[in-house]
Amino acid sequence: MIIVMKQRSSDDDLKRVVDLAKSFNFETNISKGAEKTIIGIIGDNVYERKEAFEALNCVEEVIPVLKPFKLVSREFHPEKSVIEVENEKIGEGFQFIAGPCSVESKGQMEREAEFLSNLGIKFLRGGAFKPRTSPYAFQGLGIDGLKILKDVGEKYDMKIVSEMMAPEDISIFEEYVDVIQVGTRNMQNYRLLEQLGHSTKPVLLKRGFMSTIEEWLLAAEYLYYHGNSQIILCERGIRTFEKYTRNTLDISAVPLVRILSHLPIIVDLSHATGRRDLISPLAKAVVAVNADGVMIEVHENPEKALSDGQQSLNFEEFASTYEMSMDLVKTMEGI
Amino acid sequence: MIIVMKQRSSDDDLKRVVDLAKSFNFETNISKGAEKTIIGIIGDNVYERKEAFEALNCVEEVIPVLKPFKLVSREFHPEKSVIEVENEKIGEGFQFIAGPCSVESKGQMEREAEFLSNLGIKFLRGGAFKPRTSPYAFQGLGIDGLKILKDVGEKYDMKIVSEMMAPEDISIFEEYVDVIQVGTRNMQNYRLLEQLGHSTKPVLLKRGFMSTIEEWLLAAEYLYYHGNSQIILCERGIRTFEKYTRNTLDISAVPLVRILSHLPIIVDLSHATGRRDLISPLAKAVVAVNADGVMIEVHENPEKALSDGQQSLNFEEFASTYEMSMDLVKTMEGI
Amino acid sequence: MIIVMKQRSSDDDLKRVVDLAKSFNFETNISKGAEKTIIGIIGDNVYERKEAFEALNCVEEVIPVLKPFKLVSREFHPEKSVIEVENEKIGEGFQFIAGPCSVESKGQMEREAEFLSNLGIKFLRGGAFKPRTSPYAFQGLGIDGLKILKDVGEKYDMKIVSEMMAPEDISIFEEYVDVIQVGTRNMQNYRLLEQLGHSTKPVLLKRGFMSTIEEWLLAAEYLYYHGNSQIILCERGIRTFEKYTRNTLDISAVPLVRILSHLPIIVDLSHATGRRDLISPLAKAVVAVNADGVMIEVHENPEKALSDGQQSLNFEEFASTYEMSMDLVKTMEGI
Amino acid sequence: MIIVMKQRSSDDDLKRVVDLAKSFNFETNISKGAEKTIIGIIGDNVYERKEAFEALNCVEEVIPVLKPFKLVSREFHPEKSVIEVENEKIGEGFQFIAGPCSVESKGQMEREAEFLSNLGIKFLRGGAFKPRTSPYAFQGLGIDGLKILKDVGEKYDMKIVSEMMAPEDISIFEEYVDVIQVGTRNMQNYRLLEQLGHSTKPVLLKRGFMSTIEEWLLAAEYLYYHGNSQIILCERGIRTFEKYTRNTLDISAVPLVRILSHLPIIVDLSHATGRRDLISPLAKAVVAVNADGVMIEVHENPEKALSDGQQSLNFEEFASTYEMSMDLVKTMEGI
Repeated sequence: MIIVMKQRSSDDDLKRVVDLAKSFNFETNISKGAEKTIIGIIGDNVYERKEAFEALNCVEEVIPVLKPFKLVSREFHPEKSVIEVENEKIGEGFQFIAGPCSVESKGQMEREAEFLSNLGIKFLRGGAFKPRTSPYAFQGLGIDGLKILKDVGEKYDMKIVSEMMAPEDISIFEEYVDVIQVGTRNMQNYRLLEQLGHSTKPVLLKRGFMSTIEEWLLAAEYLYYHGNSQIILCERGIRTFEKYTRNTLDISAVPLVRILSHLPIIVDLSHATGRRDLISPLAKAVVAVNADGVMIEVHENPEKALSDGQQSLNFEEFASTYEMSMDLVKTMEGI
Repeated sequence: MIIVMKQRSSDDDLKRVVDLAKSFNFETNISKGAEKTIIGIIGDNVYERKEAFEALNCVEEVIPVLKPFKLVSREFHPEKSVIEVENEKIGEGFQFIAGPCSVESKGQMEREAEFLSNLGIKFLRGGAFKPRTSPYAFQGLGIDGLKILKDVGEKYDMKIVSEMMAPEDISIFEEYVDVIQVGTRNMQNYRLLEQLGHSTKPVLLKRGFMSTIEEWLLAAEYLYYHGNSQIILCERGIRTFEKYTRNTLDISAVPLVRILSHLPIIVDLSHATGRRDLISPLAKAVVAVNADGVMIEVHENPEKALSDGQQSLNFEEFASTYEMSMDLVKTMEGI
Repeated sequence: MIIVMKQRSSDDDLKRVVDLAKSFNFETNISKGAEKTIIGIIGDNVYERKEAFEALNCVEEVIPVLKPFKLVSREFHPEKSVIEVENEKIGEGFQFIAGPCSVESKGQMEREAEFLSNLGIKFLRGGAFKPRTSPYAFQGLGIDGLKILKDVGEKYDMKIVSEMMAPEDISIFEEYVDVIQVGTRNMQNYRLLEQLGHSTKPVLLKRGFMSTIEEWLLAAEYLYYHGNSQIILCERGIRTFEKYTRNTLDISAVPLVRILSHLPIIVDLSHATGRRDLISPLAKAVVAVNADGVMIEVHENPEKALSDGQQSLNFEEFASTYEMSMDLVKTMEGI
Repeated sequence: MIIVMKQRSSDDDLKRVVDLAKSFNFETNISKGAEKTIIGIIGDNVYERKEAFEALNCVEEVIPVLKPFKLVSREFHPEKSVIEVENEKIGEGFQFIAGPCSVESKGQMEREAEFLSNLGIKFLRGGAFKPRTSPYAFQGLGIDGLKILKDVGEKYDMKIVSEMMAPEDISIFEEYVDVIQVGTRNMQNYRLLEQLGHSTKPVLLKRGFMSTIEEWLLAAEYLYYHGNSQIILCERGIRTFEKYTRNTLDISAVPLVRILSHLPIIVDLSHATGRRDLISPLAKAVVAVNADGVMIEVHENPEKALSDGQQSLNFEEFASTYEMSMDLVKTMEGI
């Protein structure tokens, strides 16, 4: 950690910083420039004391040197992690997670699962508890939706991915779901992260649409720190000034996370774009950049979907996107 | 609600939209331009069906005409709301909410409350459950912190404002706290909003740092819709590309909320800026723009604060900011 | 164009809008809802009068229905444009534009051009006039740099791409350069666009790092409108809150521009990321998303570069990126 | 300047950095932590060599310690600058700059100037060369507009402020205009800044709507460095995700610029908000935060304005805003 002193700081100021460091058993290394003095602070867990130094009036800036996350970093765990969901894996090969935005009925989910499992897809998504911007919008089927998901998943041998919104729901999610999703608005819901940290279920952690990659990895660190290392990261677009897309897909997050972390990373293209006409070309980009998978909303009849119809593919569009992507996966192996 | 058809849409496409509208008992009004056709959709609760229209392939865009919030709007309730916290009011006059970022000890809170109540301040803030970006940072004293707050509040006749992080904590917050704060990262934690909607305690709803004013008012709508109309809005800065401040204070939100909503609005300057040297000049701006109050972090010894020291005023700085602000409040009355 | 009236507007207000429309020879179509009235405005060039309607006090909002750009749109020119630079084409196949950030010396450019042309690359980039954030940074060799570029381009049969910063430089750029680049900070330098609109040289138009895709296409419209249809669009990242990359590559811009416009589009990966370790994986994504090419900074010795060394590849890294990308181009043809 | 080495860097890597520093005659100060090594680099003009260090593979990050601007900084010139425009001053007292978005006719400008000068306003603004997003929008009267401005300015003893768009227009602007405005889209048009750096006319430098305060002060540094110290900074809102306002007014920029720079700063409220209903409350905030002035668009008949009518006040609204603001200016003197 580096302390930059204000330009006209005195020797007394310098002593104050050094004394504060000593009180925490940190070592210091002072470097006086013509205009500014900087102090290197060395010791265990220096970042837990960062704010103490920032509060000193004589300090202009405190600059972290180490990344603030540890357990999810490549340095901590140089090999890439593979998350096992029973007999399926995320982090090896390229996985599709597909399904409707919301669970609407048993019949709908049956037809979805039949179609998707016939294509060879192993992960079925569907929202039962829906975070909606407006209290007047469809809020999901709740526990009935989860039961439908479990039944259909067992019948078609698909793993179930669904979003959990509050810590108190943990027991029903552990009963009905294979991978618990944390939504973009809950990425910094720390109580939820703590609760999931104590679970044995894998967690699919979506990036907050307003979050830096560092904050996202720190959210993953919460899960890991509280005991759950089964984490799948999911980039889903960030909020920018661009208006033609619902969000801006941050495709660079994929290779960046590869460098910084050992956790697998997939991309949710439906929320990243909000437009069904961009899904197919971008799916190829996601394969090419070597992500571990993609999540796409698909609905038998997008025009009748109770939510997110404008960003859902129909069966035909989905099948074509899937085939092209898997062809690319195969050819990429030779490159 | 307005439907804009794609440029080369056919009469069949048009019929599809009209039929869909009819199926919901909506009326339609068609307007054919040289290049594009638009359709006005009229009826009750048309927005609950917005996504159904968006999912039609022939539709280019669905444009809302009405604001999506109702209960919190000026149209619904033309007079400004005043929130009563026992014998104190927010929405009439100009209130200061002050206190440390975190409750650290009873002694600390005693000294804070003594100092602040002597100045004439009626609302004491302090975090007991702290949402922290890193799992390694100080997480607050929890329920012990709430007990300290209650004791001190009673002793010095101050109202207590503190942040609640999870729905399951509602009963202890209702016991110990006068105004329950929803933090910026939880503005769209809908389960939390629902729970607080059933409470009789006033809620201080911070704006999400990534949220539009429309989304913020929709979050307030959740509270109102579920039964709690005692809502205080709190602007606290939004995330932008600017780096010299922790966030960008959106001062325009104050007059905008005045136009759009009947709810009172205050400004949290500590989080909006992250810099103690900007608090005093901006406090005057907050008064001038006619907000209902300001929230400022103050600490007896910012350099020793367990969190947010760099943005906390010390007692002397705070007293000076308070005096100047209140002088301005008085002179503003004549303008 | 749609006019949304304010909620409590009177019949007189309505008449005002209709009269204003009539004064411009526009037709109107009124649709009265329970709470709001909307008016469709139909006629030629309605957008040139948009501000007149916005200025009416009774008008809440004026909503455009047509895209504001015409000449660069797919509707105007359904087939994709191919830009010919003598015997080379952009818009057919996949082109690499490569070279150093700045022209530093003739020897340097000779070695670059020899290396790149041996690989099979046809477009050589290099900055002679450099827009730099600080007046203290290296500002480029100016006209001497352009002369070096021309000599080297002729010797190695490469087309020269270089950035022009002011209208008054047009004659020297027309003499020395094959493709004139408009930099990100000049995307809305309208005088420069006008001047280039009168040129016969192709223009490579970078997206403003703060610009929407609509504004970018409107900047292209300026060029086209003033007479120059030889336009190559170049996505180069936009400014967001993310800090690990210099900008955020908006990969969705590629398929979006394909839908909206007939102009070819390439991606500048060096500026989009600012990090050399992301270039190679993202180059594959650019190929996969079917862009018309990529621009990458390469330097014989990045550590000695006078500018942008941290984002330049060395020869070895570049060759490997090039080979992998071209392999992918070939295999993509079969998908 | 601080160099942070990558985590697994060797002694050879360290030597490389030190040798590079020596080759520039810089001193180094090495500080080895448990996990990372940092190196302080001390010497004259170290930032001109920043990119050389960034390009080293063993370097993770190069962190500036000093602000990159000098001549416009408070350290360089501790007293606040006052810009004299003949017998008027900006930087002392509170100035209004008012007038229409565009010059439309001599009669219009006569009526504006008569009205404004009667109120006591000394600075008249009006666009003659208009930067417009679309080539189809009104582009201004050009030189004829400047002539009207000069005539009217002389008749009513007002100083003229108007925007210049290209370096080649310098001589006509020097002839007709008192303060030359650089628009938001041209803040980083370095050739224009250089040209104005050689002028003796004061420059009103608007902040780029996507620019950090640091970049803005660096643009001012260009002007100063090239010889023109008569600079007035103008905050005019930045681009964010918020949609109810055209831009987000960054009011914190005012006290921040006060701390960082000696230059005067005013606020353009019309562009910052894009809504006339926010001008009056925000004008009071601008006074309260101690800015040096405000710029507001006013039009005799906003509904007939050729541009920006929706954000222009009419005469009555303007007079009321002006009176309230000046009342506040007076009462603020006592606070």
